[in-house]
Amino acid sequence: MSFNSFGRVFRFTTWGESHGLALGAVVDGCPPGLTLSEADLQPFLDKRRPGQSRFTTQRQEPDQVRILSGVFEGRTTGTPIALHIDNVDQRSKDYSEVAKAYRPGHADYAYDAKYGFRDYRGGGRSSARETAARVAAGGVARLVIPEVRIRAWVEAIGGDAIDPANFDADEIDRNPFFCPDAAAASRWEALVDGARKSGSSLGAVIACEATGVPAGWGAPLYAKLDSELAAACMSINAVKGVEIGDGFAAAALSGEQNADAMRPGEDGRPRFLANHAGGIAGGISTGQPVLVRVAFKPTSSILTPVETIDRAGDAAEIFTKGRHDPCVGIRGAPVVEAMMALVLADQKLLHRAQCG
Amino acid sequence: MSFNSFGRVFRFTTWGESHGLALGAVVDGCPPGLTLSEADLQPFLDKRRPGQSRFTTQRQEPDQVRILSGVFEGRTTGTPIALHIDNVDQRSKDYSEVAKAYRPGHADYAYDAKYGFRDYRGGGRSSARETAARVAAGGVARLVIPEVRIRAWVEAIGGDAIDPANFDADEIDRNPFFCPDAAAASRWEALVDGARKSGSSLGAVIACEATGVPAGWGAPLYAKLDSELAAACMSINAVKGVEIGDGFAAAALSGEQNADAMRPGEDGRPRFLANHAGGIAGGISTGQPVLVRVAFKPTSSILTPVETIDRAGDAAEIFTKGRHDPCVGIRGAPVVEAMMALVLADQKLLHRAQCG
Amino acid sequence: MSFNSFGRVFRFTTWGESHGLALGAVVDGCPPGLTLSEADLQPFLDKRRPGQSRFTTQRQEPDQVRILSGVFEGRTTGTPIALHIDNVDQRSKDYSEVAKAYRPGHADYAYDAKYGFRDYRGGGRSSARETAARVAAGGVARLVIPEVRIRAWVEAIGGDAIDPANFDADEIDRNPFFCPDAAAASRWEALVDGARKSGSSLGAVIACEATGVPAGWGAPLYAKLDSELAAACMSINAVKGVEIGDGFAAAALSGEQNADAMRPGEDGRPRFLANHAGGIAGGISTGQPVLVRVAFKPTSSILTPVETIDRAGDAAEIFTKGRHDPCVGIRGAPVVEAMMALVLADQKLLHRAQCG
Amino acid sequence: MSFNSFGRVFRFTTWGESHGLALGAVVDGCPPGLTLSEADLQPFLDKRRPGQSRFTTQRQEPDQVRILSGVFEGRTTGTPIALHIDNVDQRSKDYSEVAKAYRPGHADYAYDAKYGFRDYRGGGRSSARETAARVAAGGVARLVIPEVRIRAWVEAIGGDAIDPANFDADEIDRNPFFCPDAAAASRWEALVDGARKSGSSLGAVIACEATGVPAGWGAPLYAKLDSELAAACMSINAVKGVEIGDGFAAAALSGEQNADAMRPGEDGRPRFLANHAGGIAGGISTGQPVLVRVAFKPTSSILTPVETIDRAGDAAEIFTKGRHDPCVGIRGAPVVEAMMALVLADQKLLHRAQCG
Repeated sequence: MSFNSFGRVFRFTTWGESHGLALGAVVDGCPPGLTLSEADLQPFLDKRRPGQSRFTTQRQEPDQVRILSGVFEGRTTGTPIALHIDNVDQRSKDYSEVAKAYRPGHADYAYDAKYGFRDYRGGGRSSARETAARVAAGGVARLVIPEVRIRAWVEAIGGDAIDPANFDADEIDRNPFFCPDAAAASRWEALVDGARKSGSSLGAVIACEATGVPAGWGAPLYAKLDSELAAACMSINAVKGVEIGDGFAAAALSGEQNADAMRPGEDGRPRFLANHAGGIAGGISTGQPVLVRVAFKPTSSILTPVETIDRAGDAAEIFTKGRHDPCVGIRGAPVVEAMMALVLADQKLLHRAQCG
Repeated sequence: MSFNSFGRVFRFTTWGESHGLALGAVVDGCPPGLTLSEADLQPFLDKRRPGQSRFTTQRQEPDQVRILSGVFEGRTTGTPIALHIDNVDQRSKDYSEVAKAYRPGHADYAYDAKYGFRDYRGGGRSSARETAARVAAGGVARLVIPEVRIRAWVEAIGGDAIDPANFDADEIDRNPFFCPDAAAASRWEALVDGARKSGSSLGAVIACEATGVPAGWGAPLYAKLDSELAAACMSINAVKGVEIGDGFAAAALSGEQNADAMRPGEDGRPRFLANHAGGIAGGISTGQPVLVRVAFKPTSSILTPVETIDRAGDAAEIFTKGRHDPCVGIRGAPVVEAMMALVLADQKLLHRAQCG
Repeated sequence: MSFNSFGRVFRFTTWGESHGLALGAVVDGCPPGLTLSEADLQPFLDKRRPGQSRFTTQRQEPDQVRILSGVFEGRTTGTPIALHIDNVDQRSKDYSEVAKAYRPGHADYAYDAKYGFRDYRGGGRSSARETAARVAAGGVARLVIPEVRIRAWVEAIGGDAIDPANFDADEIDRNPFFCPDAAAASRWEALVDGARKSGSSLGAVIACEATGVPAGWGAPLYAKLDSELAAACMSINAVKGVEIGDGFAAAALSGEQNADAMRPGEDGRPRFLANHAGGIAGGISTGQPVLVRVAFKPTSSILTPVETIDRAGDAAEIFTKGRHDPCVGIRGAPVVEAMMALVLADQKLLHRAQCG
Repeated sequence: MSFNSFGRVFRFTTWGESHGLALGAVVDGCPPGLTLSEADLQPFLDKRRPGQSRFTTQRQEPDQVRILSGVFEGRTTGTPIALHIDNVDQRSKDYSEVAKAYRPGHADYAYDAKYGFRDYRGGGRSSARETAARVAAGGVARLVIPEVRIRAWVEAIGGDAIDPANFDADEIDRNPFFCPDAAAASRWEALVDGARKSGSSLGAVIACEATGVPAGWGAPLYAKLDSELAAACMSINAVKGVEIGDGFAAAALSGEQNADAMRPGEDGRPRFLANHAGGIAGGISTGQPVLVRVAFKPTSSILTPVETIDRAGDAAEIFTKGRHDPCVGIRGAPVVEAMMALVLADQKLLHRAQCG
């Protein structure tokens, strides 16, 4: 119920720090009999893996996942699936200054305030490196929901948004930004390069859509599908906002504008004329695409010195010398996909438990 | 762990439907020895109560809360606190049409898809009436965190936002909109009246701030303070978006702009020069005010007929004749406050459990 | 996850004290569409109800259960089912002495040590009166598992056991002791009368069997069926021991004696030649009858004065003047049945979640 | 909440199979700042380790535990502690027959019935080998409760019990049976040797005492200390019964005999004249020693052929050729100690959460 686990029936627990020996996840409650090998998970880790373009951190991590339990003769057994990823390219020397003073925007001060001390190497447990474990677990989750197709993309970087008219799903995997708009991708190259070279950083907005979700998933009132998605996405490093469907824009609409009118569709199911609701009503999926949008703040690690205090409470100045993503939101795309998969897998099983 | 409970150590469970006999909450895990009577809870229910101005639904509910257990000789005993609110002014006849066809934007279709049938009277369990139980539970939560002051206000209605320069905390309770900007409150009168008279509805944005939260509350990684707040707020009826601190605006900032620089403050604690982070870093409170912003869609019940389908899957047209809030977000303010209190009380106890 | 809730998917929460206004349960996660009315629950409450013979406490409680939510037009809706039982015959005056000194064997001292004070009226929350709420919830659970038949009986009182050779299931409901052995029932009349008249009390052993449980229920490793049953039964007031199948007797057997050999049965399922295991292997049901045996200590309330201390820590003497069961284990039979039903309903849904 | 995790605030999750690559545990919710290294855990694993005398299985496993996360510079950080134990001496060839037919008393049939297939090598997940992970986690738990001393011993093997008059705590670690009675230990040598040589097996009763537990731990009503201990112990392989204090014997006592009278002790706390209750009243510790007694059935693996069925449902005969403990209960002693530590650590933190 606590701390480092997520999910109710399909449940995962992650462990590990940025510069520890390894990190991993234990996936519990997975249905038995699903075909699973490391090759099923690796593509998702590769997508999230750092060091693949100049627009992400240059830390080189192969992020090879190993399955240590829960699979026998190529199939899940229904028992816990232990996923293990070794840390390879830790350079702890980069972080000596961080031990002494607090990096604004980072969790440094908060961790010290809570726990009395912290593993300062690369941010320790608060590092986005932990998301590798989520992505591995998310790969297992996808097997549980073969009827669903999940796709995330970057919608804006540093305030420069895509043009919806240019949306081309095939474009997403063709550029290092998970950008569905070729023109925007070009602009972002310069934008991110600029930030990288000047030691600055940029925020981003990620959108993620799940199609094929049947009507009826979601466990009101406090395990609503949208509530779980909000928790899942807000738990990702650097996330500061979550929207379902029209999100904040809906607050400016009238009731007439916001109504997703229905017409008779196939098999007595409705055909919706719009999807302002993002596929969720009353916390339950409607059968429309589930749409979530997530705001990532700019990477807190910047080369510009910032005023801060040290552990003794005295004034200090700090800038972060380690290797960092100029825009952590970019690599957030596969992480949001993983969280979507993890939530949907859990909700599918939870729905099956109650409603058969 | 499931469905209608929220919280980990300080935990509440709600029950009840819009037109049932009653609704209530069971609050579990409350520390013993706190002074508690019904008079401590009633003011919060009164604030949320419908029928107090022409800008809210005209349903007349006294919402008198009764404490049925867990309190002895005026103090909490550490055992479950049962809170009970009778439903008084149900007019089930208003909802006969809803039984047959699905109201777009409402949970009608989703509930039928999930459960096979539904209590259609006033939306049944999916009605915002359930939030009365949350508000009562939230009143108990406040007793657990006397060091914290919680204050919510309406920041925008129908896209018309307050002017931050006009912000006056004392103004919030002087108008029926929980509006801290007297000028905006005047404009909103006309705006909401217009919507009400035309049978339309409006969305709203609520902001909620908690001051006095010490640094160190929050249980990373999957019970982070921001993650819990996001789940708590997204579980409220009609909510479509949640932001912490700068939220989506942070995604357009540079790392330099977004950094909350620190200077030495009192007792070795930092004095922060800004609060883009909304008082939370790495999922843990920093000692700054905790700030959450919530988007409410316009009330789905409107008098304009909308295309829909009936239970048989045939085309139909529906408009909602019952009594409804023209802007459900307004009454959302005390509900967001309650959820803030409930999350913080739980996090305080969770922190005490682990860190003493 | 905490305190006063039990179950994982089918989950109930109880509240209320012996001498409070009322007590109740909220049942969450119940499948939708089950036919349910108060008349379905009342017989179980009547079976547990006090004051029905001279062998139980003379407190007169009608224990009329009311369903306040979660049922619409006679069927469960899938939303929380609130069950409410008013307390009627509280005589708080009986308990004035208990306020000052601790009754040995009771929870008085432990509650004070934990919470700093306590509701001393009739034992407050620690009273066996709470089991009325469990029994009501158990009635709902039975609807979830129509394939299962549950039957409890008293196997021994004060060390005087039934003769298995005399076992007659029809006899159980013919005497006030839930005793399947007519000869033992006769003996127990004198035995319990003697204890009652002398102000003494007796312990008892309850056995409970569930037939019709299919093979495959149980969620290893930490939600094993036997583990859940042990927790459920040990949570009942006055219970000090739980056995599955042969229990402690199995510890004296050899591997050959304890083996439940199998032969081909119907549909490829085994026919077991014995049931030392009590229907559970590896924490999972085998398709055999599930058998649990529960030890109740003698009622702690006795008329003989016992040495104790008062709240100030000074020496005192106490004897309990209130109305009490001379053998609380007798009324434990319907409570054990309820716990069996609640565990099995939860395990059925949990199994369905994971294994379809 | 589900399956392979245990605990509410101090919570652990185990993974791994008998013949997989490794097994392990993730301990979550551990307080920060505790001194912890592998050397703190290894002694407990060594105590449970097989192959140390001829009275246990001859499988040779070094059971070297590695800490992969959650510790920094020798102290716990408050983040998840991943414990990893490699499997070294798997001999999967021994289990080929088990793949085809079901061993009576084992989980073979139940796992197949539940999951559709199973990892048959050494019992897979249902093997007692999993308890190594619990014992490692238990070592962490002990650090959380330095005020408590936990000691388990074997009280009976194959029905041959120790003589309480001979109880000598120092004797426990001097013989391979964790036996506090030197005379009994001598007898058991012959008894267990006999079972081993004839390919038979024996059951055992383990007792475990925790001293130093302050009054007030335990979270009624459904996370009572005794309820949690019952669940924890019943989840151990081969356990069929759990008693608290006098357990089943209490059911044969009168109220007078069973009363643990109190006299004034130190600091206003009572001095108890007896401990029939096993240190727990109303689910809360009383300050007396907490005493639990656990029944282990005889090892199900025996060399005598037993009637059974194969996966196709046809008649078969099976005897188990692998290496097994002639009395699995012996090595249960350190496992029961671990579960006691894990429950008490969790209850300590839970108490601190609610009661400060």
